[in-house]
Parts: sequence; C-alpha cells; structure tokens
Amino acid sequence: MVAEAADDPVFTLSCGPVEIYPAVARALAKPVHYHYDPAFLAVYQGVHEKAQKALRTRTMPVILQGEPVLGLEAAAASLIAPGDVVLNLASGVYGKLFAFWAARYAREVIELDVPFNEAIRPEQVEAAFRARPDIRVVSVVHHDTPSATVNPLKEIGAIVAAHGAYMLVDAVSSFGGMDVDPDATRSDLFITGPNKCLGGSPGLTILAVSERAWDKMKANPAAPRASFLSILDWENAWRADQGYPFTPSVAEINGLDAALDLYLAEGPEKVWARHDLTARAFRAGVKAMGLHLWAASEAIASPTATAVRVPEGVSDAALRSAIRQRYGVMISSGMRETAGKLVRLGHMGVTAKPLYAVVGLTALGGAFRAIGHEVDLGVGTEAAMAVIDAAL
Amino acid sequence: MVAEAADDPVFTLSCGPVEIYPAVARALAKPVHYHYDPAFLAVYQGVHEKAQKALRTRTMPVILQGEPVLGLEAAAASLIAPGDVVLNLASGVYGKLFAFWAARYAREVIELDVPFNEAIRPEQVEAAFRARPDIRVVSVVHHDTPSATVNPLKEIGAIVAAHGAYMLVDAVSSFGGMDVDPDATRSDLFITGPNKCLGGSPGLTILAVSERAWDKMKANPAAPRASFLSILDWENAWRADQGYPFTPSVAEINGLDAALDLYLAEGPEKVWARHDLTARAFRAGVKAMGLHLWAASEAIASPTATAVRVPEGVSDAALRSAIRQRYGVMISSGMRETAGKLVRLGHMGVTAKPLYAVVGLTALGGAFRAIGHEVDLGVGTEAAMAVIDAAL
Amino acid sequence: MVAEAADDPVFTLSCGPVEIYPAVARALAKPVHYHYDPAFLAVYQGVHEKAQKALRTRTMPVILQGEPVLGLEAAAASLIAPGDVVLNLASGVYGKLFAFWAARYAREVIELDVPFNEAIRPEQVEAAFRARPDIRVVSVVHHDTPSATVNPLKEIGAIVAAHGAYMLVDAVSSFGGMDVDPDATRSDLFITGPNKCLGGSPGLTILAVSERAWDKMKANPAAPRASFLSILDWENAWRADQGYPFTPSVAEINGLDAALDLYLAEGPEKVWARHDLTARAFRAGVKAMGLHLWAASEAIASPTATAVRVPEGVSDAALRSAIRQRYGVMISSGMRETAGKLVRLGHMGVTAKPLYAVVGLTALGGAFRAIGHEVDLGVGTEAAMAVIDAAL
Amino acid sequence: MVAEAADDPVFTLSCGPVEIYPAVARALAKPVHYHYDPAFLAVYQGVHEKAQKALRTRTMPVILQGEPVLGLEAAAASLIAPGDVVLNLASGVYGKLFAFWAARYAREVIELDVPFNEAIRPEQVEAAFRARPDIRVVSVVHHDTPSATVNPLKEIGAIVAAHGAYMLVDAVSSFGGMDVDPDATRSDLFITGPNKCLGGSPGLTILAVSERAWDKMKANPAAPRASFLSILDWENAWRADQGYPFTPSVAEINGLDAALDLYLAEGPEKVWARHDLTARAFRAGVKAMGLHLWAASEAIASPTATAVRVPEGVSDAALRSAIRQRYGVMISSGMRETAGKLVRLGHMGVTAKPLYAVVGLTALGGAFRAIGHEVDLGVGTEAAMAVIDAAL
Repeated sequence: MVAEAADDPVFTLSCGPVEIYPAVARALAKPVHYHYDPAFLAVYQGVHEKAQKALRTRTMPVILQGEPVLGLEAAAASLIAPGDVVLNLASGVYGKLFAFWAARYAREVIELDVPFNEAIRPEQVEAAFRARPDIRVVSVVHHDTPSATVNPLKEIGAIVAAHGAYMLVDAVSSFGGMDVDPDATRSDLFITGPNKCLGGSPGLTILAVSERAWDKMKANPAAPRASFLSILDWENAWRADQGYPFTPSVAEINGLDAALDLYLAEGPEKVWARHDLTARAFRAGVKAMGLHLWAASEAIASPTATAVRVPEGVSDAALRSAIRQRYGVMISSGMRETAGKLVRLGHMGVTAKPLYAVVGLTALGGAFRAIGHEVDLGVGTEAAMAVIDAAL
Repeated sequence: MVAEAADDPVFTLSCGPVEIYPAVARALAKPVHYHYDPAFLAVYQGVHEKAQKALRTRTMPVILQGEPVLGLEAAAASLIAPGDVVLNLASGVYGKLFAFWAARYAREVIELDVPFNEAIRPEQVEAAFRARPDIRVVSVVHHDTPSATVNPLKEIGAIVAAHGAYMLVDAVSSFGGMDVDPDATRSDLFITGPNKCLGGSPGLTILAVSERAWDKMKANPAAPRASFLSILDWENAWRADQGYPFTPSVAEINGLDAALDLYLAEGPEKVWARHDLTARAFRAGVKAMGLHLWAASEAIASPTATAVRVPEGVSDAALRSAIRQRYGVMISSGMRETAGKLVRLGHMGVTAKPLYAVVGLTALGGAFRAIGHEVDLGVGTEAAMAVIDAAL
Repeated sequence: MVAEAADDPVFTLSCGPVEIYPAVARALAKPVHYHYDPAFLAVYQGVHEKAQKALRTRTMPVILQGEPVLGLEAAAASLIAPGDVVLNLASGVYGKLFAFWAARYAREVIELDVPFNEAIRPEQVEAAFRARPDIRVVSVVHHDTPSATVNPLKEIGAIVAAHGAYMLVDAVSSFGGMDVDPDATRSDLFITGPNKCLGGSPGLTILAVSERAWDKMKANPAAPRASFLSILDWENAWRADQGYPFTPSVAEINGLDAALDLYLAEGPEKVWARHDLTARAFRAGVKAMGLHLWAASEAIASPTATAVRVPEGVSDAALRSAIRQRYGVMISSGMRETAGKLVRLGHMGVTAKPLYAVVGLTALGGAFRAIGHEVDLGVGTEAAMAVIDAAL
Repeated sequence: MVAEAADDPVFTLSCGPVEIYPAVARALAKPVHYHYDPAFLAVYQGVHEKAQKALRTRTMPVILQGEPVLGLEAAAASLIAPGDVVLNLASGVYGKLFAFWAARYAREVIELDVPFNEAIRPEQVEAAFRARPDIRVVSVVHHDTPSATVNPLKEIGAIVAAHGAYMLVDAVSSFGGMDVDPDATRSDLFITGPNKCLGGSPGLTILAVSERAWDKMKANPAAPRASFLSILDWENAWRADQGYPFTPSVAEINGLDAALDLYLAEGPEKVWARHDLTARAFRAGVKAMGLHLWAASEAIASPTATAVRVPEGVSDAALRSAIRQRYGVMISSGMRETAGKLVRLGHMGVTAKPLYAVVGLTALGGAFRAIGHEVDLGVGTEAAMAVIDAAL
C-alpha cells in the first residue's frame, strides 16, 4: 500500500488547493464560449450576482482573473496611496508577508505583530490608532492559514471604521466556511477566492469593494490601470453591455458559477456549521491523542483548518511523507516561520464533513506512530466522534 | 430558429476564446490535487516538458497563471529595462497597443507603423536599426489578430539578432496553427497561450525565454519580482523539487496538459496543414462570394483567422447580430482602429478543419443577405470546396 | 487531411448512435450513487416524471435498462399473447424485422408490406381489418430509419382503436424530433429511447404503456417475468418506495435526466421545428444537387433523417469511405434490403440545426465528386440556404 | 448535519452500485461516436482485448449490453440445454436465486445448499457427482454478495472438470478484487461486470467463455439467438470488421475502457492487495468493537465486502437510516433470507483503500450507538489501524 511517488492521493486534506466538488468539476468541463457570446455574457453577469448574494454585500463584487494572491497584490497597489500610513496586523505568516506589499505602496507601514499562535487583540488596534492617528489603511488576514488561527475581524473592523480608516482583509480561507462577510465586518476591500471553503478551483479572486474603497482607489493616481494588476479596470465588466479589460478565464468562471450555486443552495449557515463541526471534532481528537494544537487557545482556532504542533524531535517532513505514502493522505506543512513546527489539515468545502475529521486523525496518528512517536488513536477517534455525535 | 439571447451558440467561429477540444474539457474536470502532491508535481513538470517539445526550444518554458495579456505585460515589464530604446512594430491594433506598455518601462519607444491591412517589411526594420543603432528591444506581434495578418517573423528575427537586440514576440494566436517557434525565429521572449490554436482553455500564458533574455531580465532591477507580474519568480518552479511563487491554476494546468498531448500526438505539421487549408478554403470562398479580404495581399493573410472587409454602408454590428441570431454562429468583430471595418472568423484548434470554412461561409453569406447585401453563396461554397478538394 | 482510420470524426451525421449534448455528457460523468441512496431515488423517480411530461401521456412510462432493441423485443414478448393475430405493417427494414419477433410470440402474423420507399396507407390497414377482424395487435414502425420514411401513425392509430386492437409502435427515431406522442396517436406500447432526437446516450429504452396494454400484458401468462426482457417487473420501480428488479444503469439514468431537462427547457415545439427545418433544407439541397431522395414523395420523408438514393453504378461503400476520410463526416448506410441503394444522414438532437444541413450537403457532394459522380454543390447549398432563410 | 432525504451521500460504501473512479466518470463523458465509426471500432475491439488481458483467459471475452443480471440470465439460457441436469451450489441468496433461472432451462436442478453464512465445501460437490454422475452443469456464485462469503472456486472447478461437466460462475463482485480468473478456476462461463471491483459504471456484463462452452451453447437449439438475451449473437462482434447485433452502449464501453486501463496500469496484484487489506482491517475493527461477522469463519469472508451481523433486538433499517442521515454513509442491507440479519459494507474499487475501513467502522459504530447499541469505537479503530500498519 505504500504509494509510489505519482500515485493519486486517496484523500486531499490540505489547506488549498483543496478538492473541488464534483459539480464544479463538471462545470469546468463545459464548452468554452466566446466571451462576448450572449450565452456567456449572461453567465458572467450572473456569477457576479451570485457572488454578491453569497458575500451579502451592497456593491457588486469584482472577479479578478488570477488566484487570490493577485487580488492581494492588486488590493495593496490600488487601495494604498503613496502618502498613506498603513497599520499591518500580523498574527501569522500571511499577515507578515502582506507588510512587504504594503511597503511597496505606502509612505509608512506600522507593524503590529503577535506571536504566530495568537490572534490580534482589538485593544492593540485601538492603541495603535491612539499612537498614530494618521493611520489610513489597516491590513489584516482574517484566517492566517499557515497558523490556522482567526483574528476578531468584526471587532477590529469597528475600530478601524471608528477612526475613519480603511480595512483591507484577506478572507481567502475563511469566507464560505464561517460567518464572515464584508459589510458586517465593515471591510473596505475583502479578498477571497473559489478554492478554499467554496470547493471551487484555484484561478480567480473574488473581491468585495466598499463604496468608499472605490472612491479611494479611483482617487489614487498610482492605482494600477491598464494592467493585469488593476481592480479599477474591472469595475463595470460584470455588466453584459460592457467590455472586458481582457479575456476572462471562461472555464474558471463556469466553475465558480457552480460553486456559488452549491453554496447558496445548501445554505451558508448549514455550510458554516459543517465546517465548524468538522474542525471541532478534529481538534478534540488531536488533543485526546496526546498531541497539541498550534493555536494558543481554541477560541482562535480556525473552523476551516487545524494546525497541529510537531513535537520536539519529530521531523515534520518525515511525518508528511509517512501520511502520504502510507495512507495516501495529502496534508499541508507550515510555512516560513511556522515551517517544521506544525502540520496543517484543512476542513474546507468537500472535506468539511465530520467523518473527514476521523480520516485525518487516524491517518495523522498512524503517521506519527510510523515515525516513532506514540499516540492514542482509539482515544482520539472516540473524542472526535463524541463531538460529532453531540451535534447531531 | 432565430435565437434568444442566451441560447448556446451552435458554432463558435470566433478568434478567441475558441471552442476547446473535448479531451481538454475532460482534463479540466480532473480532481484538483494539492499543488505539492507528488501526483501533481509530476503533471506540472511534465506539462513544461511537453510545452518545450511543442515549442521546439532549448530552454524550459515558463507558464504564467493568467491569460497571455498577463504574459505580454510581464514581458514588457521584465525585458525592457529603464534605459532601453524599444522599436515597436505595429501592423495592427495589438502591435499598436503594445507600445503603450513598452512606454511604461522603456526610455524611449520608436514606433514603426504600417497600415493595419499590411505587414511589416523586413527592410523597414533594417532601416530603423540604421537610423537608431541604440535600439535594444524590438517588439512585434506575429499574428495581429484584429486584422488577421501575419508579419515575417523569421526575417525580422534575423535582423534583430544581427544587431544584437532582443526580440519580444506576441505569438498568441499563431503558435500551434502554423510553422513558428521561438528558436527558428530567434525570438527572445515568445508569448503564447493555450486558447487559440491549441484548443485549450484561456487562463494561462506559455512563455519561451532565450538564455540571453533570462540574463537580461535578471540584470534588470526594475523587472517584477515577488509579484503576480513576475516572470523571474517562476524560473525554476517547473522542477518538482522547487516551490511555486503562489498556487498555480491546477485545473488550467490539467487542461493545458491535455491540449499539448493532442497537439504532439496529432503531429504539429499535420495540425498546421489543417489550419492552413481551412483558412485558404475560407478565403477562396469569401472572394468568390464577392466580398473582400481585409489583408492587402493574401500572402500576409493568417492561416488561423480571416478578416473580411465590411462593405461601405453595411453595419458590422447588424451583420454579427444576424449571424448569431439566425444561425447560432459566433464570430469576432474588429477592434479599435479596425472596429466596424471588418469581421473576423477564426480557424483555430477544433474549427481548423476544412468543413468549418463552409460553415463560416454560408453563415456569413446568409447574414450579409439578411441585412440586405447580396452575395453569391453557391459560388462561394464551390470555391471553398475546390480548394479543399485540391488538397486531399 | 485524409483521415487515418482511428482519427475522431469531425461531424457525426449518422442516424444513431448520434452525438450527445454536452450537458448529457457531463451528466454521464456524475458520481454513481447506490441505487437505493435517497439522492438517487429522487433522481430516478424524477426522470420518470420528466419522461411522462415529455411523452405527454397519462400513465407513468417505463424505463428499461437496454437500448430500444430491448424494448422492442420485450414489447413483442409481453403484449403479444400466444393466441394473438398480429398485423405487422412493414414499410421498411425495421418494420420487416419486427415480424420476426412477432412470429415468435403470436399465433399468426399477417404482413402488410409496401415498397420500402413508400408509407403504409391508412386504407390498407382498414382493409386488413375487414379481411381479418380477428387481428388483435398491430405493430408499426413510425419512422423506419433504414429508409427514412414516416408512416401516418395518427390515422393508423385511429383505425386500430376503432377495431379494438392494440397498437405497438416503434417511435425510436421519431419521438423528440417531431410531433408524435402515444396518447394522441392512441398507441398502446410506444417505444423510444434517449439516443436519437433527444441527444442522449444509447443504453436505455423509454416505454409508454396504455392502461389497457398494462392489462393485456398482465393477463398474458407468457409475458416475461423475472427476466431482463420483462416490462412487467418494472411497473412500479419508478416509485421511490419500491424496489428495482435489478440494478438500473445509474450513469445512463443521469444522462437521460439531463436530456429530458434540455428537451423540456427548450420546448418540444421548438425542438421539432429545428428538426423539420434542417431536414427540409437538406432535402432541398439534395434535389438541387441533382441527387434523388429515396422516399417516393417528400410528404413521407422524415424530419429526423434523410435517405439519399445512390445512383446506378456508384458504390455506397466508396461514397461513405470518401466522406469519412476526406471530411471526417460519419454517415449511415442502408441496411439489408436498402443496403447499397441509399445513404442516410441524420438530423437528430445536436445536429438538428439548419447549418448542419449545409455541412452534410457539402460533404456528401464532395464525396460524390471524389468518386467520380458530378453534382452541383453550389446550387445545392443555395437551395438549402433558401429554405433556411425563408424560415427565419 | 443530519441529512435531508435528497442530500448527496458523503461516502458510498455499498456493495454495488459503487462509486466510480474519476477517470471512468470522465470517460463516460466522451463524445458518443457512431458505432461503426472507425474511431469507435478501434475502441470497441480494444476494450475486448483489455478485458481479455484482465481476465487472463485464452478466448476473447463477450461484452453484453446490460448489467450482469443480463449476463447471468443469458448464461443460464445459453449454456443449460433442455436435457441438462444442473447442480446449483447455493451458499447465499444469489446462489439460491440462480436455481430459479436454471430450472427454467434445465431438465432437472439439484440443489446443494449450505447455511448462508457458510461456504460450499469441495467434498460436497464431489459427493453430488458421485450421487448423480449425470450432472452436466454446475452453477456457483463465487462471492455471494448478500452474505459476503466466498466459495472455493478453484477446488470446485477442478472437481467439475474432472467429471466433464461445465461450470457457470457468477464472479460479479469478486473479479478484479481478488485473485480469480476463468482459466485458473476452469470456469466455462465466467460472468462479471464493471461496477464492482473495477470501479466502472453499471450497465454492462463481461463474460469469459471457454472453448467448450462456445461449443455447447452453439449446439443448444434453445440458446437465445436474435435476442437481447443472446450470447451467441455477440461472438464475433468484437472484431472491427464484424457487425453488431444491435447498438452497443457507447458511453458504457468508453467507461469500461477506462476502468480496464486503470486496473491494468495499477497492476492486478496490487489492486487485490488493497482490497484484501481494507477488508481485513475492517473485519478486525468490527470484531474489536464487539460486533460479529456474518461469515461463520473469516477464512470465507470476502475481501471485497463485509457482512456484519445485526444483533438481536436491533433494527437494521434503523441502523442504515442512522448511518446515512448522521454521517452521509450509504451501506447495503441484507436481501431476502439475510434481510434484517446483517448489514454490508463494500470494499470495492475506489473504496478498497485502507482508510475507508476506518470511515466505515466509525460510521457504523456511531450509528449503532445512535440507536442504542453500545460499541467500542476506539478499540475498533485501533484494531483496524493495527492491521493496516502491519501491512505497510
């Protein structure tokens, strides 16, 4: 059963790219129509309307033709004007990395860091504003995937709004898997994508933009225009009677259309509930097996991914190799500062169903054992099932 | 039979996005694996090797995660250093547009324009170098799709090379449909994509880079790095043991893999021949029907698309509307300078089969008639069939 | 361009199996659920309800798990009791063949034949009843595909009903492509399938059964029971709370579900109109090219397929080989009595769109020429387009 | 998380129809070609050659156009001549049912039954021959799915051969999941299908026929001919230069082609090993949880499905309902004599991977608890993992 290198995985429990829903796969296989074909124009406008409904936001979202890293770079380049002071909240690797982009466009970037197993506390943001009332933009990662922790976005958003600043949010791996949307959190730019909790395929960015963010970007002479990095170019492209700046990724649009249909048909609250339950069951199992969560407290552990601390003396590479080769299970590693210190399992979209928590636990436990680190699989499974059964 | 707005087209004879091969559609529907899954790493390295084989080039191509407009912008930003003088060859709308990007990065852009129904003549390039020996980069669109004409790339490449300059080529809608490759034309950056003659889906750029282009880009401090626009970031990403700058579009990679398999299995020469035959048959029919080609001479007419002049007093919008609503055939319009003056039919990938020339002719002829412009359909069909039958 | 043996066809213009709609292809690719899974039970009951709606019939149709040849054999075996006298109407090869099955189950089979390029005349049926008032079952092929002619089903049905007999109808290649349904024609067993005018895939039979036919079959001790050939076994299988006699072909059921969705969404009248228009255009072209229809009169020519007479001295095999190898077009031959005398092109489902008539004409004309039989392609195309344009 | 009726299952762990491989799903979505198209003729002959290779048999297999129930009925009707004495071996429901068909065609059927949790013992067969040397045909179900037990086919086959009789084998749910093939077991008719261990879709029968079985069927005047039930009609249909008795199910053939490709590419021995390991792990877990296997001894428990005894006082319907509604897991019930006494989980094709044993165990255990029957899930999981880890 030990897999050869190129054997297909049995279960993909990564934090993204994640497995796509079968209906998304079929939508990707639709005929590619000309982008100005009336049939495609109808789909294209429709997918924006569905995204708007899913995002529960007042304005029409923008879809960019590249995975959310494009959206994040475009957001930094567009929203942050040359004279702006940016407060970058970094509770993890992605938060930290964003400072790099912010610095490219801002006059000054103030960093507010916490240890990467903790979350930003709203009072820290409040304090930052008191120290520097000239902060114009606050950037924050809602769910910092490399540490699988979640920041209190709503509370932070209220503070930012109270100070008249703009909030730029990376909600890539939280949106669709938990109760978060741009309006309720007072986000100005809210970046997400199809390939995390929506179970769509990577290759697009979904971007919610507040009215004041549109104004700020339009007033920013340095905001990308006539560029692949531009948000402004796409403002009206969703309308069937408007042109595109360039060819949209037709197949990806069809795939997103199906992903949004699934999300809206199942009902967002129901989708969030199964993400939450899967994650809670998994965390209960991890702890019961004698392993440790990366997150300093469960209150900040993400419902869409879980980071498990790699014990001293254990090689995370050996662990990941064992789980893939023995059981065909693909998981994610840490990144940069968290590399080697944790492994991560996603609970997103297709795999946000409780029994996948058991799949993840037994595979992870088995892999730990295989490399010589004893864990109690039976107790772990029982603990996970107890959480699941309590919820049903 | 008159179609309602959102009815699916019966035949897509556009110039891109074009219809995809069924095998590409199925590949797009493959399970999405984690990008570091060994199974995907093997596919990812393999698709580069297949692209290299298809491109017949010495170096490993780069795949960028956006449609070729990304590749063109990235190429301008990377290859053109702040002190460079660029000679931009413009025989059409796309050539003209490139000057805009070139100007963003160059010290100076020299424009060499010809009327948009003609091709650049090699002696013009030679003369330009004589006038300005400091030209460092020459940019050229091989097949300027909005006018469906082809520039003599090999001859131009020889001149550019003789002067030690760099040639940046937009071969988006020619590669895969005719005999052109980066090495034989001495191209330094050669940009193409899956969704024209390869019958793949839009969403990726394929980029061939000469060794000296790599050197020049690396030496360019202004070349994008740590950006969605970067070429440099992806230099080694094709190797299974290297990381990605960000998540590749997994489904699109699978689709490209299938498109390259089809191209290599059928045999490039055979693929080119059917593009050429379809276009020749179509042109013969157009002329026999009493219509006029846009191209000043057939010698420069593209084998992958045909532009038909819209006669005085005829509305191209009415014509396109008639062909779509009456026959379900989707074609392309002119753009900018050519808008209103011509309509275009593609002969790319799936539709580069001779009988599609007849489909296009009868639909086009019928639409002309429907809006009051008489043509001789029977003679047109006979002329097309005569070309086809002579080749079989 | 001359195709190698195994190259995929460019256009399939056969009389079945025919090309399937892309949405059917995607439905065939759905996950296969357990046949008693609640999700599949809902699909399974739903597909019957959609079939009933499409058939415009009072009773719930039966779906058998094999292509319509299964349905025809099962119908003969079930409806024809050992003491029955059967009047078999044979206007073509399929009609003739049915006598063979009828004879297996009947006491006596009376054959009413007409030349295979003509249709049964209602007065012939009336006369047959006068001569043999003991006729209990009349069997008739609505559209006898091997000669592409249509019998006057409604008129025949009225006569059969007036005499209290049962009418067993092969409507395999007519239903879905023209105005025919079991109740309006007073059919008792009405057999059709997904892979002709519905553009579904072969592998199932759809069977409409009148209430009196159910009674007759149940009273027939020789009707198959506990057999793959049984109709009776499946009477109630459509109900989600009933069992199946054996495993249904899950993928084919999903495919049929999509085919029925398409048919009902487009609207039967609209579907019939495009079948009719395509066939009329094709016939006009055939005649204008100097070729001859097989049908003795156009009044009986099918709207879903056209048989073209092969002139004296012309090899139909050479003709079909030429059309496939030169143009990639697959057509059908004659069968048995009509073999060698005609070739047939289908206008069913996907290809029941007017421009396919032009594709068929030019390919057919070109193939005739290639084997030395001159035709006037231009005039043929003009004639077809004139029919099309008159209808738009 | 409690599912609504029509929600898709999360895991299908039934005994068939089973989940299909993604590559099979994509193959089902291929364009449907005309059955006499050279491209399809090549596929059609190829699928037979692959089936022959998979079956490791000397003669070319037959593919029938219906699920294996068609094959079983056709086999009985074809191989059993009116004067034959048949020994029917019944170790389960399917074995018992076959006697019904055998009786339809034989002069006499001798039944050799064992309790449905046991297997036929070779010496019983030997004894039967001693008692009735006139036995001409022995029918046996290799893996009687409703009780998930396996008969010693090789030993039985040797006895049957020694007595000059013919052996007719239902290997539907064993072939492809364990080491069994027609030649090594001296089977004369060996019936299997795509939708069990091969992970293909239901809708076809694969039939291996010994040379002497061909002779016997041809000599049998009662063997079906010109019928959907005929085997004889299809003898030569695999040859590209021969006709078909009727239209094959093109999409299903494409699906089978892919399933055979997967099986041969992975390697039969490797496929069998993962079926065996998954079943052993599952059985270990079942026993450790305090539940009981249906099989009287593990030596006869199938590697492709497991039947778990439903304890006294427990409702199997409530159990199956709980597992589907709580966890989205679809399993199979008993049938007829075993109904209510057991539930069954399949380990076939896609789900014949060790971790699916854990999925099945935890879901089953959770469902037992939910309806009030306590089991020890943790111990069960540990036991399953111990088996898995010992094998890696």
